[in-house]
Amino acid sequence: MRVGVIGATGAVGKELVAVLAKRHFPVTELRLFASTRSAGTKQSTPWGDVAIEAYSPDGARNLDLALLAVSGDFAKAHARALAAQGVAVVDNSSALRLEDDVPLVVPEVNEAAIGSHRLIANPNCTTAILVVALEPLRQAFGLKRVIVSTYQAASGAGAEGMAELERETRRVLVDGQPAQNEVFAHPLAFNVIPQIDSFQPNGYTREEMKVAWESRKIMGMPDLLISCTAVRIPTYRVHAEAVTIETERPVTPEAAREVLSRAKGVRVVDEPAAQRYPMPITATGQDDVEAGRIRANPVFGDRGLDFFLCGDQLLKGAALNAVQIAEKLRK
Amino acid sequence: MRVGVIGATGAVGKELVAVLAKRHFPVTELRLFASTRSAGTKQSTPWGDVAIEAYSPDGARNLDLALLAVSGDFAKAHARALAAQGVAVVDNSSALRLEDDVPLVVPEVNEAAIGSHRLIANPNCTTAILVVALEPLRQAFGLKRVIVSTYQAASGAGAEGMAELERETRRVLVDGQPAQNEVFAHPLAFNVIPQIDSFQPNGYTREEMKVAWESRKIMGMPDLLISCTAVRIPTYRVHAEAVTIETERPVTPEAAREVLSRAKGVRVVDEPAAQRYPMPITATGQDDVEAGRIRANPVFGDRGLDFFLCGDQLLKGAALNAVQIAEKLRK
Repeated sequence: MRVGVIGATGAVGKELVAVLAKRHFPVTELRLFASTRSAGTKQSTPWGDVAIEAYSPDGARNLDLALLAVSGDFAKAHARALAAQGVAVVDNSSALRLEDDVPLVVPEVNEAAIGSHRLIANPNCTTAILVVALEPLRQAFGLKRVIVSTYQAASGAGAEGMAELERETRRVLVDGQPAQNEVFAHPLAFNVIPQIDSFQPNGYTREEMKVAWESRKIMGMPDLLISCTAVRIPTYRVHAEAVTIETERPVTPEAAREVLSRAKGVRVVDEPAAQRYPMPITATGQDDVEAGRIRANPVFGDRGLDFFLCGDQLLKGAALNAVQIAEKLRK
Repeated sequence: MRVGVIGATGAVGKELVAVLAKRHFPVTELRLFASTRSAGTKQSTPWGDVAIEAYSPDGARNLDLALLAVSGDFAKAHARALAAQGVAVVDNSSALRLEDDVPLVVPEVNEAAIGSHRLIANPNCTTAILVVALEPLRQAFGLKRVIVSTYQAASGAGAEGMAELERETRRVLVDGQPAQNEVFAHPLAFNVIPQIDSFQPNGYTREEMKVAWESRKIMGMPDLLISCTAVRIPTYRVHAEAVTIETERPVTPEAAREVLSRAKGVRVVDEPAAQRYPMPITATGQDDVEAGRIRANPVFGDRGLDFFLCGDQLLKGAALNAVQIAEKLRK
């Protein structure tokens, strides 16, 4: 297949190329697109050095598959047109995720939603990591309420976010100077920022509402009671999530562990006695979302469950999920 | 008053001396006790250099007030005997907090529990920060369920915890080496560790259960439905807490903000449009607990409320609260 990665120089773009290679995606021609600033430079890939192109609709016309890791504005301007030309499109932006005619897909959860669509939206990173664990629990025990608090890495804001955290940490630790922020609203080094994306009139941030809106759409539960507190912390990679759920039917930690151990895309890491539980340093670079700290939450009687997730948000939260969708689109 | 600080060389011990000075506590003689290893060395204080003494019950007999910032074993061995000798004792360990004959006090919440007691327990840091915000909300709206996720700083494990985070971060960032941990169960630099203290048979850690047990005792709500996920993150100081509550009566963010803005020990920092909300870098060194991100949580209909707290766990979470108790004991 002739595959184009749009936004190839970004954190997600680079992961997309790596994941295509790792999963032996049948790439016959790889084309990389980025801003005009990068055009003409070459990027090393498993398919050899590839020259970066500036994007033009004409130039992308012959692709079989376009993986978009760029802005929502770009997706709004180009995604539908590309799909109408017969290109299979997976868009990583938030622009089209809630459009009625665009499926929002996490293959482990709702592969069937792809149908004959040629334009598929890839969900928010926090959402993708969450629903691979929520859906099997929903199937087994039903789902009434979901309350999530996140611990999100700097790379959720792209390569610039990671670079800023490193630069700030050096300033604070080595130079003894105060941190200076540009990418984030406040210094992130040795700090916690309880804001990701912009605030909505209801007091939640867009990131927090995306988790609610997108989880409902992916799981087909438009009335699911779900809330999120999204917090940026000074880690480079992997989003962690503390999740409390109220199920429809009684649930035990043992039964939940059994369900999650059989779930695709989830790896149960839950041996408290051995101090084994999900952590960014173990989940980094892993396809599966780590699930652990599984325990009964008596706040909801015999229907309460707590667990802790760690997922590489550049993989399951972005590039891996996009390529998984592309694999389904090939069929 | 003749005041002794037991455990004077630790992170909390040093804060105790600083807080005594800052609040103009009427210290006529300051005595500092630590392990035999430190005995004989001098520590600079606002009352001049003070020689560190090894603790002995006889040596402490003449104190009017003893502030204990040492282990639970020490408290079990010595606290009751000291109080029986007429010394007012505030113990920062967890050993006696749940004993029926030892009040557990956060003065803003349950000052009256002190009564004529001479031995008072100082609560867990996460708990103290939580209840100063919970209690006024309980008084205004009632309290049915509480769900907390924490973002706890390295200094929760004392000065050694801070030193280890700094050492590890240098190793990773400057030397390009993997982190090496001794204080924490895993490397903390650029990581998240969902374990604080040891695991209990129910799958919760002791830290998580302390939040439940101690909040119930302090607020006098033995049946309160409350759960916690306690997570260590790579910050030096200040514990942050994402809190979701279900109230007994309808609540609005506006009414909750009004209640919290009148609450002692709380400072409302809640201007999303100006990107002002609680953060470790602003709460460090502050007596008041910052409360913000106040919003209605529809998961609990018109009785749901979310908010975010940041409190200096060495101050309100430890030394400040202990000295506040001591001020009440003087009366």
